[in-house]
Amino acid sequence: MTQKAERQVYLNGQWVNESAAKVSISDRGFTAGDGVYEAIRTFRHKPFRLDDHLERLCNSLRVARIDPRLSMEQMKAIVLEAIERNRPLFDADDDFKIYPTITRGLSMKAGSPATVIFAPRSISWGEFGRHYATGAHIVTTSVRKQPPECYDAKVKSTSRFHHTLADIEAALVDPEAYCLMLGMDGNVAENRSSNICIVRKGRIETPSPMHCLRGITTEVVFELASKLGIPAVEKDIQMYDVINADEVFLTATSFCALPVTRANGQTICGGKAPGPVTQRILDAFSDLAGVDVVEQATRRAARAKEKVLANAA
Amino acid sequence: MTQKAERQVYLNGQWVNESAAKVSISDRGFTAGDGVYEAIRTFRHKPFRLDDHLERLCNSLRVARIDPRLSMEQMKAIVLEAIERNRPLFDADDDFKIYPTITRGLSMKAGSPATVIFAPRSISWGEFGRHYATGAHIVTTSVRKQPPECYDAKVKSTSRFHHTLADIEAALVDPEAYCLMLGMDGNVAENRSSNICIVRKGRIETPSPMHCLRGITTEVVFELASKLGIPAVEKDIQMYDVINADEVFLTATSFCALPVTRANGQTICGGKAPGPVTQRILDAFSDLAGVDVVEQATRRAARAKEKVLANAA
Amino acid sequence: MTQKAERQVYLNGQWVNESAAKVSISDRGFTAGDGVYEAIRTFRHKPFRLDDHLERLCNSLRVARIDPRLSMEQMKAIVLEAIERNRPLFDADDDFKIYPTITRGLSMKAGSPATVIFAPRSISWGEFGRHYATGAHIVTTSVRKQPPECYDAKVKSTSRFHHTLADIEAALVDPEAYCLMLGMDGNVAENRSSNICIVRKGRIETPSPMHCLRGITTEVVFELASKLGIPAVEKDIQMYDVINADEVFLTATSFCALPVTRANGQTICGGKAPGPVTQRILDAFSDLAGVDVVEQATRRAARAKEKVLANAA
Amino acid sequence: MTQKAERQVYLNGQWVNESAAKVSISDRGFTAGDGVYEAIRTFRHKPFRLDDHLERLCNSLRVARIDPRLSMEQMKAIVLEAIERNRPLFDADDDFKIYPTITRGLSMKAGSPATVIFAPRSISWGEFGRHYATGAHIVTTSVRKQPPECYDAKVKSTSRFHHTLADIEAALVDPEAYCLMLGMDGNVAENRSSNICIVRKGRIETPSPMHCLRGITTEVVFELASKLGIPAVEKDIQMYDVINADEVFLTATSFCALPVTRANGQTICGGKAPGPVTQRILDAFSDLAGVDVVEQATRRAARAKEKVLANAA
Amino acid sequence: MTQKAERQVYLNGQWVNESAAKVSISDRGFTAGDGVYEAIRTFRHKPFRLDDHLERLCNSLRVARIDPRLSMEQMKAIVLEAIERNRPLFDADDDFKIYPTITRGLSMKAGSPATVIFAPRSISWGEFGRHYATGAHIVTTSVRKQPPECYDAKVKSTSRFHHTLADIEAALVDPEAYCLMLGMDGNVAENRSSNICIVRKGRIETPSPMHCLRGITTEVVFELASKLGIPAVEKDIQMYDVINADEVFLTATSFCALPVTRANGQTICGGKAPGPVTQRILDAFSDLAGVDVVEQATRRAARAKEKVLANAA
Amino acid sequence: MTQKAERQVYLNGQWVNESAAKVSISDRGFTAGDGVYEAIRTFRHKPFRLDDHLERLCNSLRVARIDPRLSMEQMKAIVLEAIERNRPLFDADDDFKIYPTITRGLSMKAGSPATVIFAPRSISWGEFGRHYATGAHIVTTSVRKQPPECYDAKVKSTSRFHHTLADIEAALVDPEAYCLMLGMDGNVAENRSSNICIVRKGRIETPSPMHCLRGITTEVVFELASKLGIPAVEKDIQMYDVINADEVFLTATSFCALPVTRANGQTICGGKAPGPVTQRILDAFSDLAGVDVVEQATRRAARAKEKVLANAA
Repeated sequence: MTQKAERQVYLNGQWVNESAAKVSISDRGFTAGDGVYEAIRTFRHKPFRLDDHLERLCNSLRVARIDPRLSMEQMKAIVLEAIERNRPLFDADDDFKIYPTITRGLSMKAGSPATVIFAPRSISWGEFGRHYATGAHIVTTSVRKQPPECYDAKVKSTSRFHHTLADIEAALVDPEAYCLMLGMDGNVAENRSSNICIVRKGRIETPSPMHCLRGITTEVVFELASKLGIPAVEKDIQMYDVINADEVFLTATSFCALPVTRANGQTICGGKAPGPVTQRILDAFSDLAGVDVVEQATRRAARAKEKVLANAA
Repeated sequence: MTQKAERQVYLNGQWVNESAAKVSISDRGFTAGDGVYEAIRTFRHKPFRLDDHLERLCNSLRVARIDPRLSMEQMKAIVLEAIERNRPLFDADDDFKIYPTITRGLSMKAGSPATVIFAPRSISWGEFGRHYATGAHIVTTSVRKQPPECYDAKVKSTSRFHHTLADIEAALVDPEAYCLMLGMDGNVAENRSSNICIVRKGRIETPSPMHCLRGITTEVVFELASKLGIPAVEKDIQMYDVINADEVFLTATSFCALPVTRANGQTICGGKAPGPVTQRILDAFSDLAGVDVVEQATRRAARAKEKVLANAA
Repeated sequence: MTQKAERQVYLNGQWVNESAAKVSISDRGFTAGDGVYEAIRTFRHKPFRLDDHLERLCNSLRVARIDPRLSMEQMKAIVLEAIERNRPLFDADDDFKIYPTITRGLSMKAGSPATVIFAPRSISWGEFGRHYATGAHIVTTSVRKQPPECYDAKVKSTSRFHHTLADIEAALVDPEAYCLMLGMDGNVAENRSSNICIVRKGRIETPSPMHCLRGITTEVVFELASKLGIPAVEKDIQMYDVINADEVFLTATSFCALPVTRANGQTICGGKAPGPVTQRILDAFSDLAGVDVVEQATRRAARAKEKVLANAA
Repeated sequence: MTQKAERQVYLNGQWVNESAAKVSISDRGFTAGDGVYEAIRTFRHKPFRLDDHLERLCNSLRVARIDPRLSMEQMKAIVLEAIERNRPLFDADDDFKIYPTITRGLSMKAGSPATVIFAPRSISWGEFGRHYATGAHIVTTSVRKQPPECYDAKVKSTSRFHHTLADIEAALVDPEAYCLMLGMDGNVAENRSSNICIVRKGRIETPSPMHCLRGITTEVVFELASKLGIPAVEKDIQMYDVINADEVFLTATSFCALPVTRANGQTICGGKAPGPVTQRILDAFSDLAGVDVVEQATRRAARAKEKVLANAA
Repeated sequence: MTQKAERQVYLNGQWVNESAAKVSISDRGFTAGDGVYEAIRTFRHKPFRLDDHLERLCNSLRVARIDPRLSMEQMKAIVLEAIERNRPLFDADDDFKIYPTITRGLSMKAGSPATVIFAPRSISWGEFGRHYATGAHIVTTSVRKQPPECYDAKVKSTSRFHHTLADIEAALVDPEAYCLMLGMDGNVAENRSSNICIVRKGRIETPSPMHCLRGITTEVVFELASKLGIPAVEKDIQMYDVINADEVFLTATSFCALPVTRANGQTICGGKAPGPVTQRILDAFSDLAGVDVVEQATRRAARAKEKVLANAA
Repeated sequence: MTQKAERQVYLNGQWVNESAAKVSISDRGFTAGDGVYEAIRTFRHKPFRLDDHLERLCNSLRVARIDPRLSMEQMKAIVLEAIERNRPLFDADDDFKIYPTITRGLSMKAGSPATVIFAPRSISWGEFGRHYATGAHIVTTSVRKQPPECYDAKVKSTSRFHHTLADIEAALVDPEAYCLMLGMDGNVAENRSSNICIVRKGRIETPSPMHCLRGITTEVVFELASKLGIPAVEKDIQMYDVINADEVFLTATSFCALPVTRANGQTICGGKAPGPVTQRILDAFSDLAGVDVVEQATRRAARAKEKVLANAA
C-alpha cells in the first residue's frame, strides 16, 4: 500500500486524510461528550440498513437538540461517498464501517454550527472472529448503565465514560470478556456496544430498551426470527435468565449475532456455540447480507492473527 | 493585540497556539467522553488552590484508570508555565483559568499514552458578573445527575451530555437561569459547573456529595465559614429547602459565591442579593484571594458589555 | 338565561343549586384530600361509557375503603337524572360532564357517612379546541407521579397537589403546555388529567399503568384500534420515545384524542396535527360517539372565544 | 352551654359559626387537595410557637405558589382573635388548636383569590391521654410517604389520602395503633400527624426530613434536649432502630412527647412508659409550656371518658 | 402404624430415618442459608412435573455455583426411590411431597462436597383445604422480596428469613392470612411459597418474575389456560389490581390454584370462591393430575381436623 | 492431642462434642435461614466485648421474633463456660471465637422452642495474618446487600446466600480479595463479615448502617479514635471515596483493623499498609486488648503456614 492511500474522512464539509482529521480541543464533543454517533457497516462494500442508522442518528440529534444542517438525503450521500472513497483501502472480501459523529461544535449558543464527521473504521475481526466457534464471554459489572432521567441509553451519545469503566472491570475477571451492564433497576441492559439476546424455550428474548440502545441489528434479528417462525419478545431480563438460558448471543453491527458460552467465569448454554436458534439466525443473516457472516469473520480473524504474528516476527 | 499574541496550550508535551490545539477524531476523549479535567483560576494572575485542584485531578484519573505519565510536580510546573505564557494576553486587573484535560488517548489498550492538555480559558464575566447585585436564577430540571454506580459525580469527567441537556431545559424556563439537577434519589445535586449552598437559620448547608462534585470552592467556603464562626454542614437537601432558604448561593471557581434570588420562576430569599451570610463569605473570600471578587466581576462584566456593544455598533 | 336556570347538584341525597353546593370545612375531602371522583361526559347529551366510569369509581372506592351507601344502579340513576336536570342549561350542540365525587365525609370512624356529590361541569372547549388543528404542547416536569406504595395512580383520588405543581411548572416553559409527569421509575406516566399515546411504526403505545390512571378513553382508543386493525400495546415508554414518535396524542374524556406537536419547546411529529393514525382514531371515535368530535370541539372553542371577546368589549 | 355558644371560624375575611363554615364543592382544596394547613395549639389559652407555625405555613404556601393575600402580621392577628373568640367555649384547664387552612380557591388562574380559613379544633385527649402511662402503639404500614419529587413531605399539604390508607392499615393490626410510614427509600418517615424520636445510648435521634414534616414540636424537643445536655441528631433511621431503641416517643402539637411501648404487636423499650429521657423532655416541656402536659392530658382524657360513659348511660 | 414405619430420607448417599436425618451445625446450609431446594408433589403417589422441578433445581444450583455431583438422571432416580420408600406411610387417597435440598456443605472451598438431601413431607391439607370453598386471605406486608441484585427470587434459595418476617407480619392482621410481598419496585411479587394470579376481564395475569419464583404450578396454569382458550399474561401488577380483580388465586405445588376472597381485611372478588375462571382451571388441573384436587384437599383437610379433635379429646 | 480432646458445643442445653453437634434437616435454620448469630472472640482466652455482642444478639432476636428462652445472664454464663471448656484445645498464645446461633427451631408456631447453639471456632489467622504488612485486597461486586425492607443488615441473620455469591464473584477478580458489597442505594455497604473504614484528611469515615451490620469492632475503633483525638463519623460513602482514601481498613472481630491496599485490582492508599491512622488504631487496640494484635496474627499465620507445609510434606 502506497503512502497516499490514506483513509478519507468527511469533516465539516471537507474530505481530509484520516491523519489530518482533527477537532479543536474546545469542541464540545471533546470537552463535554456532547455529541452523538452511529456505526454503519458494509456487506460486500455496500451499506447495511443505512436508512435505519440515519433515522436513529436523527432521533439522537433530536433529543440532543443538535442541528446537523444536513438533510437525511445529504447524510446518505456522504455515507455512500465515504464508502466509495475508502473501499479501495479494504480487501474485496473484507468489510468496514462508517461512523457519523455529530457534536454541538464549539459553542452551546443557538446558531453555532455542529461538528460533522463521517469516518471509516475497520471491523475488529481479530477481537471477535474466533468467538463464533468457541463462544464469547461476558462479565456482569458493578458499573451500571445510566438511567433515562440522565440521558436515555437509546441516544447513541459519545458520553460513554462508564462504558470504559465497565470494560476495564470486566477484563479484571476475564481479559476476553465483554462487559454486561445492568440498568439502574437491576435488569440486564447491554454491553458497551452490543445488545444481548437470550433463547429460552425456543423463544428469543431481549431486554426492554429502558436502559439500552434500540439495536438495529437486534431489530434485524427480530425480523429474521419472525420470518423463521421463531417467537421473539422484548422483556425485562435478569442475570438468572442469562445464566440459565438455552442460548445467549450478542448482537452488533460488526458481528451480527455472536454466541456466548461463558458468564462471570461460568460455562453457560452447555458451552456450545452457536446454539441451534442462534445458528438459524446466523444463517438467515448471511442470506440477507449476501455474505456468510461467520465464514467472513472467521477468515478475517485468521488473517488478522497472521498479520500480528508476522509483525511480531 | 497583534496577531502573534495567541494563547498557548500545552498539548502532549508541546506548547502550541490555541488555534492549532487539536486532537484526533479517534481520541477517546472525543469518541467516548473518556477523559477527566479540572478548572484552575487565577487571582492576580496567581493560581488559586492549585494543589487541591491537582489532587482532585489525580483522584479523577485514579478512578478513570488513566495514567497521565506526569507527576504531581510536573503538572504543577505546567500549570505555572501556562499561566506565565498566557498572562500577557490578559489585562492586569483581569484573571483567567487553566483547564487540564487528560483523556485515555487513542486506545484503551494498556500502555497506550494519554492525551494531556493544559489550556487557558477566559472567565465568562459577562455571564455572571451582574448577578452579585441582582441574584442569579436557577431552574430545577427533569434531567438528573448520574448515580455513582454509573460513574461518580465526584469524578470530573468529560462525559457531560446530560449537563448540556439540563442547561437547555433550564433555558426554556428562563434564559438567564442556571440549571439545578437532582440526584437519582431526588435530593438536590448541583449545577452543571457549580455547587449550591443554602443558608438556613444561620447555618450553611450543601448537598452530601453522592451526586455532585466535591467542590474546591465549596471547601474554601467551609473553611472561611469555620473562621467566621458560621456553622456549615453537608447534608441531604431537597428543593423545599432551597425555595425556603434564607439565602442561596452557587459556588464555583469562577464566581466564588454567587447569590441566587430566583428559583423556577419564583422569587426566593426575599429577592435580596447577596444575603448577610453570603456577604460575609464573599468578603472573607476577597481577603483570602487578595482581590475584591465582587468588584472585579462587576467591573469585568461591565467591560465585557462595553465590548459587545462596541462590536455591535 | 334567567336567574333560576342554575345548575343542579346532587349533594348527599338532595338536589341543590350549584351556588349552594357546599361542604363543611371539616369534610375529609377538604381537610385531607380523602376522596375519589370521576368525570363522565355526554355526547349529544347522553352519557358515554357510563358503566365503565362507575365501575372505575367503585374500584377507587374499594381501595379508599369508602362506602358510598349507594348501589351501582342508584349511582347510574343519579347520573342520568343529573344529565336530565342540567341539559336545559347547555346548547343542543354542546356537551358537558358529570363529576361524581365521594369523600369519607366528616370522620374516619367506621359507619360515618360519606359525602356524595354528582355535579355538572362544562367542557373547557376554549382550552383545547384549537389543538386538533395545530397540535397541543407538552412539557416534562421535574414533578413526578406518586408511586403505588403511596397511593395508586389508578385510584382517581382528589389528593392531587402535585398535579397542580406540575401544571404550574409546565406553564413556566410554555403557558399553553400540558404537563407530562414521569413515574418514580423514570418512565412516562401521564398528564394531570389525560393519558398519553404515541404511534411508532404504525403501532399505538401507551404507558403501563403503574403510575397512571387506567384511562377509559384510552381503552376506547384501544378498542377502536383493534377494530381498525391498528396494533396497540401497553408498555414502558421513555421521553425519547415521545420525542421521536411518529405521532403523539393525549386521551381524555373531554377531548377523546388530542394531537401533540410540541414537547419541551421542541417540534415533534413533524409538527403536523393530527397524524394519519390519530386521524383514523378520531374518525372512528366520532362514529362511535355519534358526534364529529373535532368539528364539535372546534366550533365550541370558536364560540367560547367569541364570548370572551364579547365580554372583553 | 347555650345554643348560641358556637365555635367561630374565620372564613375569607368573615367570622362565621362553625356549622356555617362551608366551602364550594368547586374549591380546589376540595377537588384537588390543593391546599396547605397548620395546627397551632394553646397552652393556658395562649398560642404556642405561633411564629414558627406561621413561618412554616408561609413556607408551604411558597412551594404551593398560593398567595394568601395576608401578611404574616395579619395572620397572627387572626390566630389571636380566633383564640379569643373561641376560648369561652373551652374549660379553663382545657386547651385547643387553631387550624389555618389555605387553598388555591376556585381556580388555578393567576389572580384568583385563595380560600383562607382559621378554625378552632378540640384536642383529642381521649385518644392519647392514657398513653403517657401505658405507652402508645405503632404499626409499620406497607403504605409509604410520598417522595419529594412528587410533593415534599415538609409541605403540610392537604393531599393526604395515603395517610388515611396508612391509618386504616395500621388499625387492622391494632386498633389503638398509630401508623408509621416509611419513606420511599425504606427509612422510617413519620406518622400521619406526628414525628418519631428514638433514644439510643442516651442520644435522641429523629429521621432526616426527606420524607417527613419538619416538626415544630420536634424542634422544641431538640431545644429542650440541648438545654438538658442530651445529644440529639437528625439521621436516617430504620425499623430495626425503632424496635431496639431504649426509648421511643412521638412528637406532635397535641401531645408534645408521647411514649411508645409497642411496635407491630411487639413490646419495645421494655414496655415502660415514659423512659427516663422522655420523662426529662416531658418535664422540661411542661416547664416551658407552663402546663404539666402529662397531667393535663391525663385529666382531660379521664374527663372525656366520663362524658362518653355519661352519654352512653 | 408401627414404630419402625419411619419416613426415609436420602442424605448424602444414604437412606436414613427422618429422625436421624441431621446436618452438622457447620453446614453452610445452616450457618449461611447457603443452599437451594425444591418441592415436588405427588398425585396418586406419582411425581408431578418432576422434570420441570429438577430443571429448576439445576438452574438454582447453577446460579449458586453449587455442584451436586449428581446427574439429572440420578436425581430423578432418587426422587422416585424416595416416593417408593415413603408411600407406604401415606394413605392411598393422600399425597405428599419430596423436598430436594442441596447446600454448599461444610466449606466454600472448591471441591468441597455439597450436602444433598431428598426428604418427604406431608401436604398441609389442614391449613388450606377449607379455602377452596371460602377463599383464602392475603395481607400485603411492609416486608419486601429481595431484589435480583442481592439474589434472584427465581433461585429457590434457603435464605428466606424475610419470608418468615412477612408471615408473622401478615398474621398480625389476620391469623389465617397468607403474606403477600411486594418487590422493591412496588409491584406485587409473591407469597412466601406461592405465586399469585389475578383474573381481569377474562384474562389471567401473574407478576413478571423479577421478584418472584417462576412457579411451575403457574406454568401449568398457563398451559391449561392456553388449552381452555383463556388468555394469560405475565405483567407488572399492583395491589390496586389485586383488590379490584374479578378473581384472585394462589398457585403452589400443594394447592394447585387456591381462590382468594380477602385482602388486607377487605372482601375482594365479591367474596365468592372459586370464581368461574379459577373453577375452570381447577377442573382442568384435576383432569391433568388425575385427581379431583379440590375434593382431595377438602377431604384430607376434614380428616386432619378430625385427628386434631381426636387428639384434643 | 488425644482423641477425646474434642471441642465442646452447647446445643439446646447439652454440651456435646463438636462432631456430634447436629441439627434436624427440618430445623428452620436449615430450611429457611431462619436464625441469627454472633461471633465473640477472646483475647488471652477472655471474651472481648461480651455484653455488646449479647446485646446485639438480643436485638437480632427481637427483630426476628425468636425467643431464646434464655436470659442475658444465662447466655453470658454459657459463653464463659464454652470458653472454659474449649480453651484447653487452643495454644496459650492463640485465641478463638464463640458463635452463638439461635434459630426458630422446628416450627414457626408460637411456643415452639428455638434451637440454641454456642460453638467454638478457630480464628482463620492463615487467611488474613499476612495482610497487616501487605494490605488486604477488596473487590466491588455486582451483588448487593439486601435493603432494610427485606431484612435489616443490622440483624446478624443466617440468611446470607448473597454473601457467598459476592465472595465467589470477588474471587474471580482476585482470589485473595474480600468482596465489598454496595447497598441498594449505591453506597458502599460492607464485606460479608467485616465493616469498612476509610481515612480522609485525618478523619475516619464508615458507612451509615442502612445496609450494614453495626459492627462492634467498628464501635471500638470509634471509641479508640475518640480517645486518640481522631475524628470519626458515620456517613454515606461511595467507591470513589474508597479508591481515593488516604487509608482504608476493614474491621472485624477476628482482625480488629486490617489495612487495605488494593481495590478492584488497583493499588490504593499508596500501597502502604498500615497507614499512620490505622497504625495508631491498631496500637490502641492492642493496648485495650492486652495483646499485640498484629504480632499475634502474624505469628499465628506463620504457624498456620508451617502446619500446612508440614501436612503437605
